Order: sequence, then structure tokens, then C-alpha cells
Amino acid sequence: MAEEGVRLSAEILKNGGTCGDAAVAGVSYVEDEPGFHSVGYGGRPDKNGRVFLDGGFMDGDTLHFGGVASIEGFASPVKIARSLIRGDANNLLVGQGAEQYALEHGFERRDNLTKEAEEIYLKEKESRAALSAYDGHDTVCFLAKDSSGSLCAATSTSGLFMKEPGRAGDTAFPGNGYYADSKVGAAAATGMGEEIMKGALSFAAVMYMKEGLSAMEAAQKAVNTLDTELTERNGYAQHLTLVAMDKDGNYGVGTNKEFAFAYASDEQELTIYTAVPENGKLHIAEMADDSQTEKKE
Amino acid sequence: MAEEGVRLSAEILKNGGTCGDAAVAGVSYVEDEPGFHSVGYGGRPDKNGRVFLDGGFMDGDTLHFGGVASIEGFASPVKIARSLIRGDANNLLVGQGAEQYALEHGFERRDNLTKEAEEIYLKEKESRAALSAYDGHDTVCFLAKDSSGSLCAATSTSGLFMKEPGRAGDTAFPGNGYYADSKVGAAAATGMGEEIMKGALSFAAVMYMKEGLSAMEAAQKAVNTLDTELTERNGYAQHLTLVAMDKDGNYGVGTNKEFAFAYASDEQELTIYTAVPENGKLHIAEMADDSQTEKKE
Repeated sequence: MAEEGVRLSAEILKNGGTCGDAAVAGVSYVEDEPGFHSVGYGGRPDKNGRVFLDGGFMDGDTLHFGGVASIEGFASPVKIARSLIRGDANNLLVGQGAEQYALEHGFERRDNLTKEAEEIYLKEKESRAALSAYDGHDTVCFLAKDSSGSLCAATSTSGLFMKEPGRAGDTAFPGNGYYADSKVGAAAATGMGEEIMKGALSFAAVMYMKEGLSAMEAAQKAVNTLDTELTERNGYAQHLTLVAMDKDGNYGVGTNKEFAFAYASDEQELTIYTAVPENGKLHIAEMADDSQTEKKE
Repeated sequence: MAEEGVRLSAEILKNGGTCGDAAVAGVSYVEDEPGFHSVGYGGRPDKNGRVFLDGGFMDGDTLHFGGVASIEGFASPVKIARSLIRGDANNLLVGQGAEQYALEHGFERRDNLTKEAEEIYLKEKESRAALSAYDGHDTVCFLAKDSSGSLCAATSTSGLFMKEPGRAGDTAFPGNGYYADSKVGAAAATGMGEEIMKGALSFAAVMYMKEGLSAMEAAQKAVNTLDTELTERNGYAQHLTLVAMDKDGNYGVGTNKEFAFAYASDEQELTIYTAVPENGKLHIAEMADDSQTEKKE
């Protein structure tokens, strides 16, 4: 999903840009692309056929964050979220209040419902006796480290296809959908938001890095611990995926479902990886061609 | 704040009620009381003079949760939050979507703006050149353990006085405002929501209990760690308070500001405590009279 975004983001970092500029540029590139069906323009509608978006941003130097949940009619939730980072209060806005803020602050308006998304919605609605199943919950997550050593996390999603009006997953909420601490590391999540929030997945991974685990170990421990707890209690665990980056810029990934992500650094050209869980182990390999990609810088 | 609520809650538990019934009854008692100015009826309005409420609920057996943020015109956010716990998706609703859900499911409507709150709002509005300062951010938090060993957490707040429309603090969000794991412990937060969310305070405390700390040690470690990190980075930390309960029903509290809470168990009559941070230590003592009380079962 995020290959071109990661390229853009890496370019900004190479030219001395901040991690915030890089992460937000990468995410907003994905928001603008109608081809990605779970983020921004072209995102999948809720059960009433309307597209509501969520986004989040965190600055690992100060631990300040900004988030918006359930906003309609604006181009880039991640840009709105980032702007909310200022100040000690009102950093997280939801619904009409968030839209009012975006309007007053001149953020670009956009009808995010594409013709294609509308057709898919109408078809889905017709084919269902009851609107209950869900699909397409892929949040775009960028983690970036800049030349000054700062870490940032940025996220954006249109959430579950056919979601209830007002439904918010993990994407807008720090600790859950994203977390960044420049002294330690950063993490961000995708998958089923309601399941991710049962274990504050992004915060958990950063806590494990703080205890000395690598980004890879921390991401996998966070996902596997929650997956095991949920399976023991409820008989199953829904989709949990976490990308992580430590303070030295090394990446990590944990997932209970096949997943692809992208990574680039000063030392490494943009590379796309797949992560496939199998018999309790995660197999990570370079993807041969770049037909389908997702996440992470 | 919660003395009578804790009494009610303890009575329900004594009669074999579930932790969910007990915690929600305690919180909703506080929601209904106009005398508590930061929760439910009589809660303080936002900068437009309207009262928007948040609430959350978590079941420590399944890790399922429900939450509502920024809803207007309903009596009990915690009851709506608890009802959202069912199902695998749409457990957290915000804004108008949450209101639509509450309406469709027959939750009690109520105009929560009291005459007294309106007068205070108008006075405050008049006296300010710019609406920027805040006060009165006291969430009600109940933690309960029932005879079957289950733990639950429940929260409710009207949020910051004079908040921006759509502002949500930590109260509706698992990991941040509340967390419960019947195998380990539970925790819930009050204070400045934006600051609490910088360290996923409730989840952090439960993680520390999982590592073997007592409820008291875990609550204090979670608060003190975040307080220190924020002070080092930003020069100050805003109000952070956490109540905790371990799986055996022992209580804990961590706070960087004077705070009062209530506790009752099979072995202990309802007792009100004050917690006063002083020179890096927290002094906890029984309150002589019960003139001013807050939180926790």
C-alpha cells in the first residue's frame, strides 16, 4: 500500500526533513490515492454509505499527540491530527467538533466517496440480509526517524467497511493505534481496531523495547501475547498487526495474519517485505515483485 | 465524589451481583447527581455552553470493552458504553453516531445542562478575554471485583470545562482511561486526559501488576514514570491520577496531585482516603470526615 509513500517519506528524510514532515507526507500520499480502499479518498463507506475517517500523529520527543476520529468531508485526517498536537489540551477531537475545527483552520475539504466505493457499497448492501460482516480494515501507518534522532508515528484509515456510524477503531488513539518515544522506539497498528485496543498494542510494544527488546522482538511479543490472551479467553483472536521501529531506526513487525510492509533507510534502499505467521513463527522475506505492498518507513 | 456510589456498588457485590453491575451502578449514581460538576447531570459545558459526555467500560474476563465519546442529551454514558461491549466490532462510538445508537436502543435522554452549570459557564465566558484555561477535570472511576473473581472498570466524565467541541480525553478509551484483566488487575485514570494518554496510564499499571508489582506499587510506578518523562521533556507534567486494584481486590493509587478515593470490601467497611504527594512520596491516610470524596470501589 505505502510503497510510493515510503519513497516520498525517505526522500524528505534524506534532505534533512523532520520525522513529522516525512511521516505525514507518506500517510497523506496514501490518503490521496483512490486505489487504496481503506484510507482517505476512495475509502470504504459506513453502513449508511458515508465515508468517515480517523487519523493520528505522535511526536516522540515530547510525547505530544494529535488525533481525529469519525470526520467526514476532509482530505487528510493525518494533517488535521498533526495540527492538533499543539497545546496542552484539546489534542483529540471527534465527530462534528473535529470537522468544525478543520473548517475553521482551513483544511482542504473533499468528498471522499468515489464512484467505485459507492458501487461496491450498494452491491454489498443489496447482498446482505443483515449488515454484520466486515472487511478491509487496513490502516496506513508510518514510523519515521530523522537525522536529529527524533521518532514520529502517523496513521490514517477509513475504518471498517459497513461500520456503524460514529465507530472509531484504534487509529486516532495514542497507545492503541500508535505510540512514539524518541528515547525508546515507536509502533503503530493495523488490523481489527477493537481487538488492538484490548491490549494497547502500540504502547505495549514500546514498553517492551524500553525493557530491552529489539523492535522485532517487541512487536512480536506484543502481538503474540494479546493473540494468546484473546484466544484463551474467547476462543479466537481477530487480525492484529504491529509495525515497530527502535531508536536506532531498526524495524520490527508482529502479526497474526499475512502482511506486507516497506522499509527504507540511509543504508538500505526501499525494500518491501512480507510477514507470514506459521506454526507460531513469523517468516519475514523480501517480496519478489511489488504487486501488493503496505506500510512503514 | 463517589462515596454513596461506592456504598451502592458494595451492596450489589455483597448480594452476589457481578462486577459489571456494581461498577456501572456506582458510576451512574454519580452521573445522576447534579452536585458533581465533572460528570453527567450538572457536568460543566464546553466552550459553546453545551454538555458533552464520555464513558467507558471494560470486562476483565474477556478484555471486551465499550466506550462513547462526545455525546449530548443522554443520561448515562457509562450504561451506553457497557451496552456496546457486545460483539466483535463497533464497541467504541463517538459523536452523533453514538447518539443515534443510544436513541435507537432506548437509552434515557436528558438535558445535562443544569441552571447552575449554565450560570457558571456564562460568568466564566464573560470574564475571559480568550477561552484557554481549564478546570474541573475529575472523571469518576469505579473498579470492582465480584465473588466469581471477575474484575471490571467503569468511567464517566463531562471532560474539561470550556473544552473545544468534540474534545475527548482518556475516559472513553481502553488502555488510557481504564483497563481490566481479571487474571491480573484493573486500573482507571483521572486528571488531564491529554496527559494520561501520553503514557497509556491504565494499561501501564496493569502491565506492572502482571510483572509482579502490587496494585499500590503499579499505580505509583505508572504515574511517577510518566510524570518524570513529561517533566524531563516538557518542563512540567499536568494532573495524573490512577486508581488500581489487583486480582485479589487490594487497592492502589498513584497521583501527582492531592486526591481522595473510597474503598470497601467484604473485610473492610467503606473508607475514604486521601493521597497526598510530597517530596517524591505519596502519603495515604484515612480521611477524618467525609466532606469531599472521590472514586473507586
